[in-house]
Amino acid sequence: MSNNTLWAGRYEQAAAESLRRLNDSLPFDRRLYASDIACSAAYARALVGAGVLTADEADAITAGLDQVRAEFERGEFRPAPGDEDIHTAVERRLGEIIGPVAGKLHTGRSRNDQVAADLRHWQAAAIDRIVALVYALQRALIEQAKGHIETLMPGYTHVRAAQPVTAAHWLMSTFWMLARDATRWTATRDATLTSPLGSGALAGTPYAIDRQALAAEMGFVRVSPNSLDAVADRDFVAGFLYVASLMMVHLSRFAEDVILFSSPQYGFILLDERFTTGSSLMPQKQNPDVLELARGKAGRVAGHLAGLLNTLKGLPTGYNKDLQEDKEPLFDSADTLETLLPALIGVVETLRFDPDRMRAALDEGMLATDLADHLVARGVPFREAHGLVGRVVRRALESNVPLSALPLDEYRRISPVFGDDVRAVFDFAASVAKRNNFGGTAPDAVRGQIALAETWLNERLNAPNPS
Amino acid sequence: MSNNTLWAGRYEQAAAESLRRLNDSLPFDRRLYASDIACSAAYARALVGAGVLTADEADAITAGLDQVRAEFERGEFRPAPGDEDIHTAVERRLGEIIGPVAGKLHTGRSRNDQVAADLRHWQAAAIDRIVALVYALQRALIEQAKGHIETLMPGYTHVRAAQPVTAAHWLMSTFWMLARDATRWTATRDATLTSPLGSGALAGTPYAIDRQALAAEMGFVRVSPNSLDAVADRDFVAGFLYVASLMMVHLSRFAEDVILFSSPQYGFILLDERFTTGSSLMPQKQNPDVLELARGKAGRVAGHLAGLLNTLKGLPTGYNKDLQEDKEPLFDSADTLETLLPALIGVVETLRFDPDRMRAALDEGMLATDLADHLVARGVPFREAHGLVGRVVRRALESNVPLSALPLDEYRRISPVFGDDVRAVFDFAASVAKRNNFGGTAPDAVRGQIALAETWLNERLNAPNPS
Amino acid sequence: MSNNTLWAGRYEQAAAESLRRLNDSLPFDRRLYASDIACSAAYARALVGAGVLTADEADAITAGLDQVRAEFERGEFRPAPGDEDIHTAVERRLGEIIGPVAGKLHTGRSRNDQVAADLRHWQAAAIDRIVALVYALQRALIEQAKGHIETLMPGYTHVRAAQPVTAAHWLMSTFWMLARDATRWTATRDATLTSPLGSGALAGTPYAIDRQALAAEMGFVRVSPNSLDAVADRDFVAGFLYVASLMMVHLSRFAEDVILFSSPQYGFILLDERFTTGSSLMPQKQNPDVLELARGKAGRVAGHLAGLLNTLKGLPTGYNKDLQEDKEPLFDSADTLETLLPALIGVVETLRFDPDRMRAALDEGMLATDLADHLVARGVPFREAHGLVGRVVRRALESNVPLSALPLDEYRRISPVFGDDVRAVFDFAASVAKRNNFGGTAPDAVRGQIALAETWLNERLNAPNPS
Amino acid sequence: MSNNTLWAGRYEQAAAESLRRLNDSLPFDRRLYASDIACSAAYARALVGAGVLTADEADAITAGLDQVRAEFERGEFRPAPGDEDIHTAVERRLGEIIGPVAGKLHTGRSRNDQVAADLRHWQAAAIDRIVALVYALQRALIEQAKGHIETLMPGYTHVRAAQPVTAAHWLMSTFWMLARDATRWTATRDATLTSPLGSGALAGTPYAIDRQALAAEMGFVRVSPNSLDAVADRDFVAGFLYVASLMMVHLSRFAEDVILFSSPQYGFILLDERFTTGSSLMPQKQNPDVLELARGKAGRVAGHLAGLLNTLKGLPTGYNKDLQEDKEPLFDSADTLETLLPALIGVVETLRFDPDRMRAALDEGMLATDLADHLVARGVPFREAHGLVGRVVRRALESNVPLSALPLDEYRRISPVFGDDVRAVFDFAASVAKRNNFGGTAPDAVRGQIALAETWLNERLNAPNPS
Repeated sequence: MSNNTLWAGRYEQAAAESLRRLNDSLPFDRRLYASDIACSAAYARALVGAGVLTADEADAITAGLDQVRAEFERGEFRPAPGDEDIHTAVERRLGEIIGPVAGKLHTGRSRNDQVAADLRHWQAAAIDRIVALVYALQRALIEQAKGHIETLMPGYTHVRAAQPVTAAHWLMSTFWMLARDATRWTATRDATLTSPLGSGALAGTPYAIDRQALAAEMGFVRVSPNSLDAVADRDFVAGFLYVASLMMVHLSRFAEDVILFSSPQYGFILLDERFTTGSSLMPQKQNPDVLELARGKAGRVAGHLAGLLNTLKGLPTGYNKDLQEDKEPLFDSADTLETLLPALIGVVETLRFDPDRMRAALDEGMLATDLADHLVARGVPFREAHGLVGRVVRRALESNVPLSALPLDEYRRISPVFGDDVRAVFDFAASVAKRNNFGGTAPDAVRGQIALAETWLNERLNAPNPS
Repeated sequence: MSNNTLWAGRYEQAAAESLRRLNDSLPFDRRLYASDIACSAAYARALVGAGVLTADEADAITAGLDQVRAEFERGEFRPAPGDEDIHTAVERRLGEIIGPVAGKLHTGRSRNDQVAADLRHWQAAAIDRIVALVYALQRALIEQAKGHIETLMPGYTHVRAAQPVTAAHWLMSTFWMLARDATRWTATRDATLTSPLGSGALAGTPYAIDRQALAAEMGFVRVSPNSLDAVADRDFVAGFLYVASLMMVHLSRFAEDVILFSSPQYGFILLDERFTTGSSLMPQKQNPDVLELARGKAGRVAGHLAGLLNTLKGLPTGYNKDLQEDKEPLFDSADTLETLLPALIGVVETLRFDPDRMRAALDEGMLATDLADHLVARGVPFREAHGLVGRVVRRALESNVPLSALPLDEYRRISPVFGDDVRAVFDFAASVAKRNNFGGTAPDAVRGQIALAETWLNERLNAPNPS
Repeated sequence: MSNNTLWAGRYEQAAAESLRRLNDSLPFDRRLYASDIACSAAYARALVGAGVLTADEADAITAGLDQVRAEFERGEFRPAPGDEDIHTAVERRLGEIIGPVAGKLHTGRSRNDQVAADLRHWQAAAIDRIVALVYALQRALIEQAKGHIETLMPGYTHVRAAQPVTAAHWLMSTFWMLARDATRWTATRDATLTSPLGSGALAGTPYAIDRQALAAEMGFVRVSPNSLDAVADRDFVAGFLYVASLMMVHLSRFAEDVILFSSPQYGFILLDERFTTGSSLMPQKQNPDVLELARGKAGRVAGHLAGLLNTLKGLPTGYNKDLQEDKEPLFDSADTLETLLPALIGVVETLRFDPDRMRAALDEGMLATDLADHLVARGVPFREAHGLVGRVVRRALESNVPLSALPLDEYRRISPVFGDDVRAVFDFAASVAKRNNFGGTAPDAVRGQIALAETWLNERLNAPNPS
Repeated sequence: MSNNTLWAGRYEQAAAESLRRLNDSLPFDRRLYASDIACSAAYARALVGAGVLTADEADAITAGLDQVRAEFERGEFRPAPGDEDIHTAVERRLGEIIGPVAGKLHTGRSRNDQVAADLRHWQAAAIDRIVALVYALQRALIEQAKGHIETLMPGYTHVRAAQPVTAAHWLMSTFWMLARDATRWTATRDATLTSPLGSGALAGTPYAIDRQALAAEMGFVRVSPNSLDAVADRDFVAGFLYVASLMMVHLSRFAEDVILFSSPQYGFILLDERFTTGSSLMPQKQNPDVLELARGKAGRVAGHLAGLLNTLKGLPTGYNKDLQEDKEPLFDSADTLETLLPALIGVVETLRFDPDRMRAALDEGMLATDLADHLVARGVPFREAHGLVGRVVRRALESNVPLSALPLDEYRRISPVFGDDVRAVFDFAASVAKRNNFGGTAPDAVRGQIALAETWLNERLNAPNPS
């Protein structure tokens, strides 16, 4: 019974079938094939520099690797029984294609530094794809916002209408959450691009490979300073899962808003039919599945983060097999984002507001703070004004009239400071327009905010690297 | 462009491609096919009782479902574009086979109660498979323990040798952790077997189906008392993930012990070569991958639990699409256990102790408590005895001799109560034999413990239901 | 510089100040004092049985412990510098009161088995307090439900009105979630009551204490079968945190419903002013803080569970200091529930429904399933009926009329099977009344459901043990 | 019955006692007092600029705030019944001291933007304290490393000796983990310093305060661009918890190493007695509590992160009371680090290596890779060399001799390529010295690594801001 693993020589007996099944990572790590091949090709060139390979050998290896990649791309790659992971599979196939010289590729390299390099390579590309989607979602938010700079709606705290805001301001609040996410993605991408190659299994390499040039060849920006740390450092994966988790929190919050605002009770937003689903039992339903999944999948990704931190906790330094558990949560989190974001972009691009329903939901009680500000302008300390207005609100509730319909002498009975012009307070657009300090909801302030956002986005889209 | 989903009638436009990709659960929920078909067959019979189907119609449906199942089993099932989940896929295929009568099967049923029933059905079977593996692991522990009832080894606290114990006692400590796990599995299995069928989408069913009989037909033991709760109750999945997480904690702790004990520094345990792996760089290595994965995967499963609790948090009652996120963590956790446990069983069955190395690791310092007990027997309060022995230990360290080699007058200088027979304390086997109270490490006590364990296990293995 | 810890004898140097600060658990474990004293008193009696103490000595110890407890209860207990934990503090103080005989109490006992016993003792009492609160919340739900058996409201899925239900049915859906929680609490309480005393530090006890009698004396129901397992088994704490986490999920879901239903957009529920709070800036606000905290604190408790599972993962078997991290999450989770539940009970007891707003929110679209059932009763397969009704819904939307106002010939154009009596479908109360199968929302079914719930609750309230 | 909260005016009835208990955050948020007062003083000055306060009023407020702070610092502050949080308490006390003008301070401000500003202010200072401790730990690692640049020890993977490394290399591996942590702390500190003041409750402020100047006055570096986002943005807290969690992972891994290396089985490291603890039962024990707590508390902090992400998930945008759950996990995580790090620094500063034990643990099997490299140097492809050496290892095991004692003709029987000088491979120091590429374990490389680390550290210690 043969054993084709990379380590069979020292062994007398083949691995137990149950161990093989447990240990086999090819079903999930095969998606690393392009990264594994790219890093191996770069490593082959580095081995030329170190005098381990001749240029001809390196060319043969590179050509062989190209062929292996092509087989993967065409779906023609066939795993063999001993292929316990993607690295073994590629090396085995390379050997079949180019013969024993393939066996020189692993010189001074361990799967420990190899898998760390491959995974970093893969992750950086995944971040690029995700960030492009984040920018597209931000673009969609800006476009919607531009059309609703003066559209009024209730702003909420505690799921209770608090003060009037503009729809654009509400949309842009999510833009800035995503801007912070993009900043975190960029920092995580940069941290990802540390090359561990040359660390060997744990102690470094005795070969004079130019680690810095090798790193650059793979698209990395620096090399790891300690080999023992480098082979077991999974901070970059944790970083990905954290940034993904927090972005999912943001998406879940936006989704919750849209679920509510598009529900019949609110009626502020109409979702495009193409982005809703129906019911198998109830023919009248249109369900906001995209948004519910945006919310629900926040748990999934946060679970992956919790899981990885648990897995890493208390491991001895250096490589331990536990670290194999880094890949599936990473892959699944990236897939989750790459599947979810296009649908969310579609939702945002196609949603329509119902300004009449939004306006109708405004209630004079939302101007109570403005009423207090009216007193403040006449010299009443805010805290006292707040209390007086609280009594006005109660009086209006008792009289079952809106605040603006409460007779002026009722106001004056509570405080003689209320001016003749107190009813001028009850103008939602004017209330909004007053909040025109930077970051406020006034149309003028929001125009500035959008301009700032566009600048932010354009700078990034025009940068040489997408993230 | 056609839309073959169950809810197309009300819709004018086809779903967006990005929504379809996001929403498509067939890639993972197709493994529910057997449960979906079993529950549908039972439901068809219930519809006969309710007068909705004729017996002939039910027979046609049942025969059609049998054929669909056979197609799945033979790998011949081909999904169609509108098959957004396994329920849709089965119903669509059934319709192709038996014609419009298939459309009667969904009467009074919603995917909400259907998927809950299917998943419970699947989970109960998964628990049965897992519990059988747990029992096998317990059996392997017992068998190993029987051979080492008198084999001495250091018992550890804080990763420092504390007192001598028997190897059987150490092995059995994991047996009892698993016994608690098995009890939790059984309780979770029972809680799983509540039938939600007849709850419709949320409000119950207007059809007079006999819910209790339907439940029994599916192998369930009770019916849900509130339809609104029933369609959104995922406690059973949380229960599975919790029990799995805690069992993984136990396995990770056992694994940590074996990783240490089989390392060269300890040398207590020899792992069978078939259950270790080698290194791609270092030819001499034999790595305990199974045990490292047992430890590392504890994080994975705990992450799924954290993720599901996060997903469920704050959902409105009733069904929300977020609940679709229940399946993948469940499936993955079950797969993890079903892959891991066979390998762990193999490890336990094939490991060999090295009694000489274990004995050599015993140190007289581990009998310090016995020395204190010697003083207690002569009337010294334990706390005082503990302090006196602490001084003896320090004296021996200073003199660089083992405790038993410290002259008697040195003992007496610390306390005149030390008896002439103090050196009799320094007998590891005697120390162990003294701890023969129930649950103690003395061989006699351990024999009783093993007998108890065998009774526990046999009762369960002989029960009509495996769990 | 003196060192008053229990283990000073072997040491030359005092502990570093930074270690003392890190290691000091008295600030949080002092709340175990009553449990520590109760278990110690029981242990003293067990030592009499084992011949270690005379009856007089045990009496002295018991009296001394009573005095220590009284000092704690009166807030007069003063910690001393060496009191690194509650066990040390109590033993130190006992010694001051009764002299050296206090030093006999620790014979055959370790802090490892002592702290495990104390914590189990404390936890069982905490569960009793929590379960009493759960029952009170269930009682409040029943009382509200009784008043609203025929009150109609929209039932929701996906935050969209789906089908009409009764308010009582909605309230009772939370009752049954809590019933499952109560069952889990009871099982966890039972699992908690395993006595580890007699396990010593890890290897068992050489003293002939009657472990079973000692367990019974402390109120425990069984003894641990393996000493090594017993000192490091924290399954009971994990069990508490899991049951608490899942109950918090349920409370968060109920809270989310009430937050929505009591918001102005819904207006179904009026919260009592005493259970809402105001805003520091906006005088008109009444915020549902209790419910928001019920929702938010679900994360807190789930975090404690994730944290403990992480802490336990990969620990070697036997006691490790890491286990000290079990207490704070347990205490905090118990405190969270004991603070939250009384406020939630108050919310439920004092909330009032607004049946008019609820009724007004019913929409004929919610009867679309009934319309399909109308066709089913006339022989149309449900799936086909669902599609036909979907077209009716679309037609009504296009004509901008409610379903009941669509002319009969429009119905017939879609399907000639629609009967003359099709408009009889549009009766919300009739729709609800039809769902009278067990667990359904019909008033008759809900009456049965409430009766079942009351029986369930009364059986538990009348049981000898509160849980 | 009076109600002294900030929002009493609108209310008729006092809050229920259970709500008060649940809602009361003063017991934990009182530690924000200095930040609350500093931000309020800055806000008072901003209100002068906006024309809301006169300079005299601002001076009175500032003087009053100084007095309140002094009362807190002297432990003389006494909460009043209505003090539901620190903000209310400070404002109430300020009013008692300076009269009604205190009521002007809240003009245009809400507790929503106030608490966000306070918490950011507090967090930035906490990060500064933590980073200083991180640098001190890094310094201790460097100092230890400098003394052991040529000290050999086994390097481990899978808890099995893999290749020889230097002790300095092992120590420095943790240095670089902490360097990444420090970088993350610095980025999180910067992200923390965004001022939300001027956002009001959600919609911005109608007052012309200079937000940028106000931010600078509080020590912040930028202002938030969207008021709705600003009041509910808790990314900075999540960032803290994430960075803390990952740093705890690193500390737990280092701790695990030291726990093992200082155990009798290894004996590589002697922990200073002042940083170990004893046993209450076993007089001989010296337990590594600091390191076990470093490991165990990794779970605690990761639990807080999981909890916060859960709490934030799915919240509607804008402020919700759930956000109050941000503080306790933040405070507890900061306390955990501030208590743990000093003890860990002490452990590192005082630990001593036992070079003899470390050297004795080296085994010729650890040079198997060097043996393969010997063949590689003679033209054998590495993969083939690896297999040949695997056979050598097995032969030596069978012959029960070390690799260096295997006769040369045995080597040549496996491969004629083995050179006469093959035994020169068996020199641990030479093996280490060969790995002198950047990041490798060779003494020369490690000297460079340490120099780089010192530069890194000195740059940061000499920077104007400690982080």
